[in-house]
Amino acid sequence: MCELLGMSANVPTDICFSFTGLAQRGGGTGPHKDGWGITFYEGKGCRTFKDPQPGFNSPVARLVQEYPIKSCSVVAHIRQANRGDVSLENTHPFTRELWGRNWTFAHNGQLKGYRRLETGSFRPVGETDSEYAFCWLLHRLAQRYPRTPGNMPAMFRYTAELAGELRKKGVFNMLLTDGRYVLAFCSTNLHWITRRAPFGVATLLDRDVEIDFQRETTPDDVVTLIATQPLTGNENWNRIAPGSWALFCLGEKLV
Amino acid sequence: MCELLGMSANVPTDICFSFTGLAQRGGGTGPHKDGWGITFYEGKGCRTFKDPQPGFNSPVARLVQEYPIKSCSVVAHIRQANRGDVSLENTHPFTRELWGRNWTFAHNGQLKGYRRLETGSFRPVGETDSEYAFCWLLHRLAQRYPRTPGNMPAMFRYTAELAGELRKKGVFNMLLTDGRYVLAFCSTNLHWITRRAPFGVATLLDRDVEIDFQRETTPDDVVTLIATQPLTGNENWNRIAPGSWALFCLGEKLV
Repeated sequence: MCELLGMSANVPTDICFSFTGLAQRGGGTGPHKDGWGITFYEGKGCRTFKDPQPGFNSPVARLVQEYPIKSCSVVAHIRQANRGDVSLENTHPFTRELWGRNWTFAHNGQLKGYRRLETGSFRPVGETDSEYAFCWLLHRLAQRYPRTPGNMPAMFRYTAELAGELRKKGVFNMLLTDGRYVLAFCSTNLHWITRRAPFGVATLLDRDVEIDFQRETTPDDVVTLIATQPLTGNENWNRIAPGSWALFCLGEKLV
Repeated sequence: MCELLGMSANVPTDICFSFTGLAQRGGGTGPHKDGWGITFYEGKGCRTFKDPQPGFNSPVARLVQEYPIKSCSVVAHIRQANRGDVSLENTHPFTRELWGRNWTFAHNGQLKGYRRLETGSFRPVGETDSEYAFCWLLHRLAQRYPRTPGNMPAMFRYTAELAGELRKKGVFNMLLTDGRYVLAFCSTNLHWITRRAPFGVATLLDRDVEIDFQRETTPDDVVTLIATQPLTGNENWNRIAPGSWALFCLGEKLV
């Protein structure tokens, strides 16, 4: 199993605080020692920092924690290998282009029979069930929408249907973003919280760290975090029901 | 104009030494202040560090210089914007999947009439002439080779022909790699050097730095560097003739 973390915000926000908690789980307080990765969007562009090394002692993870990259959409993943070797090509998140946008995907869980999935012109580079599933999703989306969809929420509803098909093959918790929207599909465990002004003090579950959000944000900021398990102990996280999904755009929950 | 740097090696080699020279040019000793990026391959996987900030004062550039990532194939780029805004989606190198491999591309130069290039299912995300050209190349390659080519050098010969067509639209110096092969196409300026044991002492042109390669390498190492201009002052770099190209595989020049 792996840990997922997503963020959707209405102003570029740095995620150092929350990633500190996730990085601790990468071999520190959790069993997810087989690589980690995080993708930050800045406009249509994105950059990914990833490492097949455990998160808690990776120099790249330290950079990400110490260097605040401001972003409206973030997807991060800590991996415990179950399908595919521990290697860079098997490390999430995965990014591919569709409709002239960068799509970034991370998966928590395990699938059976995934090699029979038809992926068309989106060929997997590594050996993970996750990348196969991502390529299949993109292939199906490209078939259904040869051009950029006019109705994005409808496209995400279709994507969630496809994710439901994958869930029949095992466990399929997923985060998917194009930098504006973040789709969270829950197979077993996925939680979210939206923070708005006035912000309180958040306490990380994994470490004795507190940050006063009022010092970090402005009164209009809306920031949603999505994670496998709640990252903080003093806030009420919402659970997404297994088999269900949530769609966020610039901090706000749309569906 | 921008600066290109490529590496091809028969054993995973860290490129800190050479990147130090290139990063200095990113606003330090050169005019290339509009972003930089570097892609390292580790097996079939690759990771890219990029920043729309000048190379010489970027925290990510410092990480790359100080943290030795060992790789057999590297492509790096320092950008001075001429087409497209200074933004992350316009920052080289660009990576796309074809035939189940990650292909990474960086371009130095400027093209006219590039918006008429047909890119098929490879749609540009940003606005640069470079990404258009890359998408066009991949589209043409996917048309010619619907499946993985059996004869890779022949495929690269065809790619060089396509690059020659792009050169008719302006200046098109290019590096292209899939992690095994590195294709260097010269439109105006591109130089390479192959270093073998016994290694000497190399002196960087941009900074008072020396590294004794004998302390860094083993007797069997073969390392080729490709750069817009020679990076060192005490070695004989080979110039690729304008309109010509060179193909490297694991350190050795094939063509």
